[in-house]
Amino acid sequence: VDYQHVQVPFEITLWIMLASLAKIGFHLYNKLPSVVPESCLLIFVGLIMGGIIYGLNDKSPPVMDSDIFFLYLLPPIVLDAGYFMPSRPFFENIGTILLYAVVGTIWNVFGIGFSLYGICQVKAFQLQDVSLLHNLLFGSLIAAVDPVAVLAVFEEIHVNEKLHILVFGESLLNDAVTVVLYKLFRSFCEMPSIKSVDVFAGVGKFFVVGLGGVLVGLIFGMTAAFTTRFTKDIRVIDPLFVFLYSYLSYLTAEMFHLSGIVAIIACSMGMKRYVEANISLKSHTTVKYFMKMWSSVSDTLIFIFLGVSTIGENHEWNWPYICFTLIFCLVWRALGVLVLTFFVNRFHVNTITSKDQFIIAYGGLRGAICFSLVFLLPDFHRKKLFIAATTVVILFTVFIQGMTIRPLVDLLAVKRKRESAPTVGEQIHIRFLDHLLAGIEDISGHWGQYYWKDKLEYFNSKYLQKILLREYDQPKSSIVLLYEKLERKHAIELAEAGQLGHAPSHPSLLNNDRTVITDKKLEDTVNPDVLEDIQEILARNLYRIRRTGPAYNRHTLPGETELVEHAKKILILRHKSL
Amino acid sequence: VDYQHVQVPFEITLWIMLASLAKIGFHLYNKLPSVVPESCLLIFVGLIMGGIIYGLNDKSPPVMDSDIFFLYLLPPIVLDAGYFMPSRPFFENIGTILLYAVVGTIWNVFGIGFSLYGICQVKAFQLQDVSLLHNLLFGSLIAAVDPVAVLAVFEEIHVNEKLHILVFGESLLNDAVTVVLYKLFRSFCEMPSIKSVDVFAGVGKFFVVGLGGVLVGLIFGMTAAFTTRFTKDIRVIDPLFVFLYSYLSYLTAEMFHLSGIVAIIACSMGMKRYVEANISLKSHTTVKYFMKMWSSVSDTLIFIFLGVSTIGENHEWNWPYICFTLIFCLVWRALGVLVLTFFVNRFHVNTITSKDQFIIAYGGLRGAICFSLVFLLPDFHRKKLFIAATTVVILFTVFIQGMTIRPLVDLLAVKRKRESAPTVGEQIHIRFLDHLLAGIEDISGHWGQYYWKDKLEYFNSKYLQKILLREYDQPKSSIVLLYEKLERKHAIELAEAGQLGHAPSHPSLLNNDRTVITDKKLEDTVNPDVLEDIQEILARNLYRIRRTGPAYNRHTLPGETELVEHAKKILILRHKSL
Repeated sequence: VDYQHVQVPFEITLWIMLASLAKIGFHLYNKLPSVVPESCLLIFVGLIMGGIIYGLNDKSPPVMDSDIFFLYLLPPIVLDAGYFMPSRPFFENIGTILLYAVVGTIWNVFGIGFSLYGICQVKAFQLQDVSLLHNLLFGSLIAAVDPVAVLAVFEEIHVNEKLHILVFGESLLNDAVTVVLYKLFRSFCEMPSIKSVDVFAGVGKFFVVGLGGVLVGLIFGMTAAFTTRFTKDIRVIDPLFVFLYSYLSYLTAEMFHLSGIVAIIACSMGMKRYVEANISLKSHTTVKYFMKMWSSVSDTLIFIFLGVSTIGENHEWNWPYICFTLIFCLVWRALGVLVLTFFVNRFHVNTITSKDQFIIAYGGLRGAICFSLVFLLPDFHRKKLFIAATTVVILFTVFIQGMTIRPLVDLLAVKRKRESAPTVGEQIHIRFLDHLLAGIEDISGHWGQYYWKDKLEYFNSKYLQKILLREYDQPKSSIVLLYEKLERKHAIELAEAGQLGHAPSHPSLLNNDRTVITDKKLEDTVNPDVLEDIQEILARNLYRIRRTGPAYNRHTLPGETELVEHAKKILILRHKSL
Repeated sequence: VDYQHVQVPFEITLWIMLASLAKIGFHLYNKLPSVVPESCLLIFVGLIMGGIIYGLNDKSPPVMDSDIFFLYLLPPIVLDAGYFMPSRPFFENIGTILLYAVVGTIWNVFGIGFSLYGICQVKAFQLQDVSLLHNLLFGSLIAAVDPVAVLAVFEEIHVNEKLHILVFGESLLNDAVTVVLYKLFRSFCEMPSIKSVDVFAGVGKFFVVGLGGVLVGLIFGMTAAFTTRFTKDIRVIDPLFVFLYSYLSYLTAEMFHLSGIVAIIACSMGMKRYVEANISLKSHTTVKYFMKMWSSVSDTLIFIFLGVSTIGENHEWNWPYICFTLIFCLVWRALGVLVLTFFVNRFHVNTITSKDQFIIAYGGLRGAICFSLVFLLPDFHRKKLFIAATTVVILFTVFIQGMTIRPLVDLLAVKRKRESAPTVGEQIHIRFLDHLLAGIEDISGHWGQYYWKDKLEYFNSKYLQKILLREYDQPKSSIVLLYEKLERKHAIELAEAGQLGHAPSHPSLLNNDRTVITDKKLEDTVNPDVLEDIQEILARNLYRIRRTGPAYNRHTLPGETELVEHAKKILILRHKSL
C-alpha cells in the first residue's frame, strides 16, 4: 500500500464525501431538518468527529487552516450568494444595507472593544494584562455578522424579502469594514506608537478597500462577459469562465489587500446578465447547478470543520470575559440596530417594523470567518482566551439563536416571503411605476435611485451590450416570446390530453397507426437531438419489454406482463380519442 | 501586494485560463483546426511559452510534475472516456482489444527493448553502458499507446466505430500491462540478482493489477449507484457523487498499485446506467457537461505542459539511439498489428481490413503518460538520453502522424463513421437479432457473448436494479414514451406554425386577444417553473421595449423602433391565422 502518494487528494475527497453523506443522512429523516438548522447538525457531526480524533490520538485534532478557509472554502459560497442575489431588493435597500454594514459594524467593534476593556479593569477577573488595542482587535473580528451562518439559517425560515436582504446584504458587505479594522488594529498592535496620521490613513483605507473591491470585481466581470462572446464553437468550456474569472477577482482583491468578498459579489452581479445571454441554456444550467453544488459542499465542510476545530486544548476558559463578550455582542448589536433603524425610518416611507428590527438584531449570527480570523491573530499570551470566547459566541449564536429564530418568527408573526411568485400583472405594474418614477425624477431634476437606474440602463444598452453580447440585436420582444411560450405550453397540454387529432395538418403522423410511422418520416419530422433521445430510450428499454413478455427464455417468470398491459391500455385509449 | 499568500490557487487558475483562452483562440479561425489537430497547436503554444520562460530566466522551465499529471490531470480524461464509452462496440470487440492491449503491448515492450539493446552493442554509438534491463524499462514506457493523444486525434477524424474503439480501447486497457512491466523492470533494476520466481510473480501480478482494477472500479461504481438512490431531497449534490466515487476508485487503485485507469473505466461504465436512472435530468446534464469541460481542460493543460517541459537542458542528444527508438517504435507496432490481426481475422467473420490495420498501426500515438513515466525513472547517468528519446518519439507521433493521419484516412478511403444515427427500424432489428442469437446460443448450449450478455441482463434486472435504482418499476414502456415524445414534438410544431387554433378546447387562451389573458388564468394553466421563466423574460426585457418606443426620455433616438415593428408584424400575422 502506497498511501503517501495519494494522501492529499484522497483525504480531500474523503472529507467531501463525508460531508455529502452527512447531508444525505439528515435529509433521510424528514423531521430533523425542519426543527434543527442543518448548520447545527453539521457542527454537531464535527464535534463528534473531533471528539473521536481527540480520544484516539490524545492530542488536539487539526484546526481548520485559515488559508484553506479563505482561499478555497469561502469563495464558492460568496460566488453563489452574489450570482443568485435578487438585484432589485438589493439595490432598493442598498443605502440601509450599507448603513448597517459600515456604521453598524464600526459601532459594534468599538462598543464591544471598549466595554470589554472596561471589564478587563475589574481586578477580580485577572484580565488587567489585556490592553485596549487587543480588545479592539478582538472586537473587530467578533463584531462582524457571518454570511455563511446567516445564509444557512435564513434560507430555511423564509422571512420576507426585504428583511432577508437587509441581514444578508449586511453580512456580505461588512467584510470590507472587518478587513480594514482587523488589519488596522493588528498593525497598531505591532507598532511602537500610534500617530493620528495612521488613524486617518485607516479611514481612507476603508474606501480604498471597499471601492477597490468593487472595481476589481467589475473589471473581471466585464472581461468574463466579453470572453463568453467568443465561445460559440466550444460550448463545453462556457461554464468554466464564470468560475475562473470570479475566482480570479477574489484572489486579485485578496492579493492587493482589498475586500475579496466585495470583489466576487461585484464580479458575479456584474457579469450575470451578459453571461446568461451569451452562453447556451445547457451551459447555464451547468453553471447554476455547479455553483449551488459547490457552495453547498463548501458550506457543509466549513460547519463540520468548525465542529472538529472546537475540540481540543486551544482554549483558556476565563468565564467572566467569555460571558461578557457574549452579552456585549448581543447588547451592542441590538442597540446598533435600534439607533440605525430610527434614522433609516425617518427617511423612508416603507419603514422597518419593530418586529423586523428584532429579527435583524437576533439574526446577527457569527461563524467561520471570526473563527478563521482569531486563529490568524499574532501570537500573544492571551490568544487562547480570545479563541475560547470566539468559539462560545459562534456556538451560542448558531445553536441557540439559530434554533430559536424559527419559532420566534412564527411567534411574532413576522411577515413571510410570499408563497406565490408575483403575477404577470403585478410585474407589469411595478415596471410601469418604475418608468413613471424615473420620468418624474427626470423632469423634477431630482437624482434619485430611479434616475440612476435609468442612466445605467441607458449606458448598458448604448455601449455595454454592444461590446459584451454575442448577438446584440435580439429579434423578438418579450411579449412575443411570452406569447410563444404560452402557445407551446398549451400545445403540449393538448397533446397530452389527446385532443390534437382535430388539427388537419400532418396526417402522416396522426392518422396512421403508430407502427406505420416509417423511419423516413421520423427523420423528416424529428430533429436529430430528439431522435437520439428516442434511440437511447429504445436501446435501454427494448430489452426489458422482451423480458416481460412471454418469450422463449428460460428465465421468464409469469406475472411480469404488467408493463405490456399498461402500454396496451394506453394505446387503446389513444385509438378511441382519434 | 501580497502575492505569496494567493500564489498556488492564483497560478493554477491562470494556467487553466491560459489553456481555455488558447482553445478559444484556435476556434476563432475556422480553418486552422481543420488542418492541424488541436493537440499539435497546444504543444506549439507550450513550446513558445517554454522558450519565453527559458529565455527570460536562462534556466530550464519547470517540468510537468508526474504527481500532478497522474493524480489530477489524467483522471478527468479517463473518467470522461469511460463514461461516454460506447458500450456495445466495446464489448463486441473486447477480445480483440484485449489482445492488442495485452499481447501487443508485451510484444512492443520486448521488441523495442531487445532491439535497442542490440543497437547499444554497436561500439560507434558509445552506448555500451546502457544495460538490457534499462533498455527493457525504457521499452516498457515507450511502447504504450497514449489514450489522451489518441482521443485528441481520433475525435477529429471520425473513422468508423469499430476502428475507433479498437485503437482507443487498446490505449486505455494497456495501462495495466504498462504499470506491471514498468514497475517490474524498475524493481529488477534495483535488485542485485533476478530469480525466476520474480519473473513468474510478475506474470501473476499482471492479472492482479488488471482484474483488481476492475474489481475496485466496480465496487465504487455500485456504491455510487446505491448512494444516488437517496439524494432525492438534495438534488443539488447528485452530480458530486459521480465525480467523488470515480475519483476515489482511481486513487484507491493507485494506492494498492493496481491500474487506476482500468478502475476508473470500470467504475464509470458500471455506474452509468443506474446513476442516469436515479438522478434528475438537470443533474445529469450537469454531470455530462462538467465531465466534458473538465476533461477538455485537463487535456489542454497536458498538451501545453508537454510543450513547456520539452524546452530546457534535460536532454542528452545521442542521435543514433533516438532515431533507432523512433524506427523501432514504428516497426514493432506495425509488425505487432499485422501478426495479431492475422490471428484475429481467422476467428471472426467481420474481419479487419488491411486499410484498417494500417490506421491502427499508424494511430499508435505516444503522449503524456510516457513523458511522465520517464521523469519518474530512478536517477541514473543515462536518464537524460531516455528523456530526449521519449520527447522526440512523442513530438514525432503527435505532430507528424497526428497531422498526416487525416489526409491518409481520406486518401485510403477508410470507412468513416456513418453520418446519420441508425434509424429506429435498424435499432429494432439489431435488438431483435440480439435476442434471436441469445436464444440460439441458449438452445445450442454455446456460451457466446450473447449468452453472457443475456445472463448479465437477467442478473441486472433480477437483483441489481432492485438494490440500485430509486424507482424500480418504471411505469411506462419505451414505445409509449417514444409515442408521447413524437406527439409533443408535433404539437410544438403545430403551435409554431400557428395551426393550433382549430382545436376547440382552452378557448380562454386562444380566442381572446393576448392582452386579455388574465393573471388568474395564467396561473391556472402554466406551471410555476414556466411562469418564473416568463417573469424573468419580462423583468429583463420590458425595459428595452420602453426604451425602443417613443418615450418621454431625453435619450431616445429615432430609428430604434424596429423591434416594436417586428413584434407588431408578428401579432398581425397571428391574428390572421386565427
